[in-house]
Amino acid sequence: MSDMRMPGEAHALVRHTHQERVLRALRERGALSRGEIARAVGLSRTTISEITRDLLEHGAVVVVDTDAASRAGSGRPAERLALDPNSGQFLGVDFGHRRVHVAIADPAHEVLASGRQIYDDSTGWPERIETAFELIDRLSAERGVHFRALQGIGIGVTGPHPRSSAPHAPEGAFGPGFAAARDDVDVSFAERFGAPVMVDNNTRLAALAEALAGDASAENVLYVRLSDGVGGALVIGGRLVPGATGLAGELGHVTVVPGGARCRCGKDGCLETVASVPAMLAACRQRGADVDSLDELANSGDPVVEQVLRDAARALGRAVGVVAMVFNPSEVVIGGDIARLAPVIVEQTGDTVGAELFPWVAAKPAFRCARLADDDGATGALAALFRSSPLLADYPEPAPIRALPA
Amino acid sequence: MSDMRMPGEAHALVRHTHQERVLRALRERGALSRGEIARAVGLSRTTISEITRDLLEHGAVVVVDTDAASRAGSGRPAERLALDPNSGQFLGVDFGHRRVHVAIADPAHEVLASGRQIYDDSTGWPERIETAFELIDRLSAERGVHFRALQGIGIGVTGPHPRSSAPHAPEGAFGPGFAAARDDVDVSFAERFGAPVMVDNNTRLAALAEALAGDASAENVLYVRLSDGVGGALVIGGRLVPGATGLAGELGHVTVVPGGARCRCGKDGCLETVASVPAMLAACRQRGADVDSLDELANSGDPVVEQVLRDAARALGRAVGVVAMVFNPSEVVIGGDIARLAPVIVEQTGDTVGAELFPWVAAKPAFRCARLADDDGATGALAALFRSSPLLADYPEPAPIRALPA
Repeated sequence: MSDMRMPGEAHALVRHTHQERVLRALRERGALSRGEIARAVGLSRTTISEITRDLLEHGAVVVVDTDAASRAGSGRPAERLALDPNSGQFLGVDFGHRRVHVAIADPAHEVLASGRQIYDDSTGWPERIETAFELIDRLSAERGVHFRALQGIGIGVTGPHPRSSAPHAPEGAFGPGFAAARDDVDVSFAERFGAPVMVDNNTRLAALAEALAGDASAENVLYVRLSDGVGGALVIGGRLVPGATGLAGELGHVTVVPGGARCRCGKDGCLETVASVPAMLAACRQRGADVDSLDELANSGDPVVEQVLRDAARALGRAVGVVAMVFNPSEVVIGGDIARLAPVIVEQTGDTVGAELFPWVAAKPAFRCARLADDDGATGALAALFRSSPLLADYPEPAPIRALPA
Repeated sequence: MSDMRMPGEAHALVRHTHQERVLRALRERGALSRGEIARAVGLSRTTISEITRDLLEHGAVVVVDTDAASRAGSGRPAERLALDPNSGQFLGVDFGHRRVHVAIADPAHEVLASGRQIYDDSTGWPERIETAFELIDRLSAERGVHFRALQGIGIGVTGPHPRSSAPHAPEGAFGPGFAAARDDVDVSFAERFGAPVMVDNNTRLAALAEALAGDASAENVLYVRLSDGVGGALVIGGRLVPGATGLAGELGHVTVVPGGARCRCGKDGCLETVASVPAMLAACRQRGADVDSLDELANSGDPVVEQVLRDAARALGRAVGVVAMVFNPSEVVIGGDIARLAPVIVEQTGDTVGAELFPWVAAKPAFRCARLADDDGATGALAALFRSSPLLADYPEPAPIRALPA
């Protein structure tokens, strides 16, 4: 995963690793006494006592009962500890071009609360971050969730998100303050919550969530999301592909109209300039159709609108066709609400790709719209934090650097 | 890897697996006594005696000396066995559109002999196969190589080579008898040599050889080969990508000239119709330039020829640009003799791709021509048989089905 911004200390790292092991034992086995925990994780009783004291203080675990009822020998009954079901331990955040989604997961990886807040496309990063903080505060207050044992924060952002420290997107590209996002989002969240932060492209995180929600046997998948922008991601050989410098998946910035309209990335005629939802709405209005919203775009019945949708899908199909010819996926998944609302998009994309590929059955991927809705980025950010999927085998481990805040 | 055509018997399979383990021990450790072999592979002395008797009979191993000199205890000195350096154990064959390459490797994976034979593009498969057999006979006679302990045969073929049994290329597509190749090449070689055969796309095998010969740290590589056809292959996350149905890499059949010339695959305007060597030669002649060979194409100094090379490289660059935007490789390698002879191709391809990608350093792959020459397909077929590279982690193991011929 991309970035991890926390001051590091060897002592804190060891302590955090021990905490992780204890929490994992409680997640997998349910309530345990301190002695049972010590045997399960292979640490001394003294060390376990220190760790569980910290975890109790911060609210990650609670005392549920004692083993008095089941105890065979004599002596004082031992307390049994369990994970605190109100403890928000993982925070997933997805910053889109026009909205932020948040999902909060408990120690057992279950989502405790989720929600979203809309903002304007021109909103700067400080305001976007503040909007996310307010949303998180509201959600946690409503559900009685506390963050005293937060283990990690995963954040999806729009636009390419290079992993290296080489010069990247210029200030202003990909919407207001893209470069600032890379530099500041992680620091802002780390300072606010005192937990490790990782940032990645939000379409890649959405593809991770979609792959985990779908058919686990789909090992070679091209995922595309049509939303306020156009993003893409690849699962190849059962692994989510980050690319050499973390930039894999930028299907939205493939040139499909040479000399076409200027894209927010600075190039001309990118797929995003014809197949994003705003681009499709604008094309409808230019051609005299009266549509203003996603629902109208999908359901107008106006032949001009259908033509715009087909043209966008043909452009998508040409780009996907090249990728499919070279990657040979078994499945192409089209995400974003418009793909579900307007079946003509999946149908036309499949037809255009089919005309590009060899005409044999073995060459053709299946086409379908995504199972998950637009909050899949936040869910994917959580999945990336859980680290439990082999899809993440090629992703660098996001090293936990800081222990629970003192 | 793709196909494996041998009648199977459980007993023969077990015997072959044991033989493999003994051969591997001798390859890794040099000469060993039967007792040392038994300890090294964890089989009984009785089983090892049987296996080594078979291996000696078939000429895979020879008796080199006894342990009399180094022996501490009393008793009869034990024979020490070693691999027979004249034993051809792996056979790599690469059928191109106009020539076949052969490479023969010994038990230590060293190439004992290699060579090539030219044929006409219109030659049918029975004649191609016969040409290969004659070449193998000549090479083995010249070098005193025998095939009594042949372990496997790897064969590269041009054109897409689907792994599934679903309907594939129609008869006649991709040159004379492509479909026949899929059905008959493996059987012909298995019957002739009595060893397991695997068949795969020859550009993918060439990419494997190139990756193994080059910088092992290059984990995300797009490989393209410009030759009588245009092929491609991908290494992603350190793994050679077969694709969902074994069809990954067909960059040569991406449409780059909509409505363009008919390609041998049946589609129109494929990259192969403008960037293969025969296509470039034809374009030069159409424009009045007088070139007939690869050398003339590369060294004519004629501005018409340079323009043809640049146009071909621009078409290549547009297709590579899409793939690079989505897969974010660190390196693009262009193979085929023309790429080495005419530096303008690598240069122009890099320029065209550079204009497509984001203009930041982190987005740009390095461009270079291949290190290996056109016999890399046969070398790659051997590498695929050796199975020693992590690049092959996503390839199904080519199960050895038959023991040494009795």
